[in-house]
Amino acid sequence: MSILGQLCPAPRLLLGPGPSDAHPRVLTAMTTPLLGHLDPQFMDLMFETQEMCRQVYRTKNKMTLPISATGTAGMETCLVNLLEPGDKAVCATMGYFGNRMVEIAGRTGAQVTRIDAPWGKVFELDQLRDTLKAVRPKVLALVHAETSTGALQPMAEVGKLAHEFGALVVADAVTSVGCTPVEVDAWELDAVFTCSQKGLGCPPGLSPVTMSERAMDAIKNRKTKCQSWYFDLSLLGTYWGGDRAYHHTGPISMVYALREGLRIVLEEGLETRWARHQRNHLALKAGLEALGMQYTADPKHQLPQLNAVRIPAGVDDLACRKRLLNEFGIEIGGGLGDFKGVAWRIGLMGHNSKPSSVLLVLGALEIVLKGAGAKIEPGAGVAAAEGVYAKG
Amino acid sequence: MSILGQLCPAPRLLLGPGPSDAHPRVLTAMTTPLLGHLDPQFMDLMFETQEMCRQVYRTKNKMTLPISATGTAGMETCLVNLLEPGDKAVCATMGYFGNRMVEIAGRTGAQVTRIDAPWGKVFELDQLRDTLKAVRPKVLALVHAETSTGALQPMAEVGKLAHEFGALVVADAVTSVGCTPVEVDAWELDAVFTCSQKGLGCPPGLSPVTMSERAMDAIKNRKTKCQSWYFDLSLLGTYWGGDRAYHHTGPISMVYALREGLRIVLEEGLETRWARHQRNHLALKAGLEALGMQYTADPKHQLPQLNAVRIPAGVDDLACRKRLLNEFGIEIGGGLGDFKGVAWRIGLMGHNSKPSSVLLVLGALEIVLKGAGAKIEPGAGVAAAEGVYAKG
Repeated sequence: MSILGQLCPAPRLLLGPGPSDAHPRVLTAMTTPLLGHLDPQFMDLMFETQEMCRQVYRTKNKMTLPISATGTAGMETCLVNLLEPGDKAVCATMGYFGNRMVEIAGRTGAQVTRIDAPWGKVFELDQLRDTLKAVRPKVLALVHAETSTGALQPMAEVGKLAHEFGALVVADAVTSVGCTPVEVDAWELDAVFTCSQKGLGCPPGLSPVTMSERAMDAIKNRKTKCQSWYFDLSLLGTYWGGDRAYHHTGPISMVYALREGLRIVLEEGLETRWARHQRNHLALKAGLEALGMQYTADPKHQLPQLNAVRIPAGVDDLACRKRLLNEFGIEIGGGLGDFKGVAWRIGLMGHNSKPSSVLLVLGALEIVLKGAGAKIEPGAGVAAAEGVYAKG
Repeated sequence: MSILGQLCPAPRLLLGPGPSDAHPRVLTAMTTPLLGHLDPQFMDLMFETQEMCRQVYRTKNKMTLPISATGTAGMETCLVNLLEPGDKAVCATMGYFGNRMVEIAGRTGAQVTRIDAPWGKVFELDQLRDTLKAVRPKVLALVHAETSTGALQPMAEVGKLAHEFGALVVADAVTSVGCTPVEVDAWELDAVFTCSQKGLGCPPGLSPVTMSERAMDAIKNRKTKCQSWYFDLSLLGTYWGGDRAYHHTGPISMVYALREGLRIVLEEGLETRWARHQRNHLALKAGLEALGMQYTADPKHQLPQLNAVRIPAGVDDLACRKRLLNEFGIEIGGGLGDFKGVAWRIGLMGHNSKPSSVLLVLGALEIVLKGAGAKIEPGAGVAAAEGVYAKG
């Protein structure tokens, strides 16, 4: 193999389930020369980043830090710190990422009870209550924003309910943070994880995690050591806590990126950001429906940032996505798990939730779907979106 | 907390144990807009990055990939994939990072036998042979370049020896790859991990790992699932292998960085790079000795890229390092573990192994040591280094 050429990929507009395009300010922040991971200047940046994570999570939790790995590592961190052999866990799954929690929880030696909602649906409180009553688990794990189905699980009452039964709540907020409300303290969530590459507008590579005092007490009272050294929060707390004791070498440039991404989120304001995601979602939804597409999730529980729609009958999944990518530079997501070949997932996340994304993807989809034989009024999708934006 | 200011840290020259300064070309590569982690263009970059990792490791191992986390995660990946409850492991420790392997191996449920060499020394083959014979472990784990002591463990014969006793060799090459020879295939090493932020001149955040066929057979023959889902090589192999099946979201920007870092390493050529590290080491060593400092490691086994020296008697460790940092912008490392307050660690790694680093750190050290009361001939350190460079 001879020496490779300079990196110069054809540009993309990332409208899949994530990564979303990083904000240009975030990419620029990553060119900042490195600091040592124990440099006092870096310690200040760590403190600032943690404090901004708390604001975005709406929490006062002391144990709030970005895990030095991607969102799935945040999931593993929460589960392997809270569960040990012999513990009981309930995983409420309504899609692909709930399944992943079952798999990871199972590897801790905990006894895992799994309950299922149909893909595209969410759990009712009564169903969760019945299971908590019957199983009395240490942990109830569920997904807030299920990226495989586009469904948003209502969480406001789940923490209180779980605490009535002495259970801790682990919530996957990978796709919700920065896009839709996440209220860690008000909703009494005990262990929450997210990622850097969706609502926070950074590249993938970090997983902000927050743990309640209740969760930290459970960790202090473990009988065995956490099975992972890298994800052991009792050790990570000494690096990210007041001591700043060496544990691993912090991923400096990614922390720079996350700090800048969080700064952008807080400059905009969380409420404004959530409203923006909702508005662009409504425009996209009007357009997709005008193109003849149906959402897979219940209308009541539809994620604004991740629009999962059924692929129209007779349309070739892969061929259409390839055309979008190669002719228009647009990435949308295919289906995962049960929805493979069944659904497309169109993300409007962070920086990318904007009218220009909506108009472009609707225009391109119209051309591609017509090419695949669909009958669509010229400009129908864009016109429908325009109607939503015109309302202000 | 009001909105924070723009990121703008005072610049540093990173001459500690790592991170080392990233090459400017690497920082620029990270500003490349994101690709989706399943984009065909990104798949090509993954393939190219894996192939360059193989070249740098001098291996044909199919299972060669960067773990999406830092070097310690590479250590954990190797150990948790190869060990399961009931297995026997020998950890040969001669410093802080050997201790870390004992700790991580212990969390797999394996029975860990630990042998120790004094800090600053290395293991003789006979000592390893005796232990292998007595214990008959599944895994022999040891550190190639011990960053806490500056000692280089000879590895050329270790693989062959371990295989005579049916053991797999896990080698920590975090500080060696890109600085000193690492010959994975010729030395018959089975599981090797490194980091991005030292000899490869990238920011911290990735851990290239390579596994021999022998190691992969051991993984295929496990009785239990790997305790970590995130680090499970049987799953990671489907993402980084031919299938490119979704496992986690690859840290796109860090892969861009690693690709560029590896490209720079291969443009220079490994032998040239090793020779450069050796030459700058000899200049630094002459200078440090002229300033009255002694190395902690055996002269025969001294790492060129990490110069651990005893802090001169009567000199205040922290005060001196603070002066270097604040007045000259130079970071050197303090001691770890047994060497805390005893040693300083001066790294000349990757991009930073160059005459300008050597001259600057020697000049600044002279001023700082004189300020702390040392008697030194004016310009003694720089003059000694100059003498080495003058020889060509």
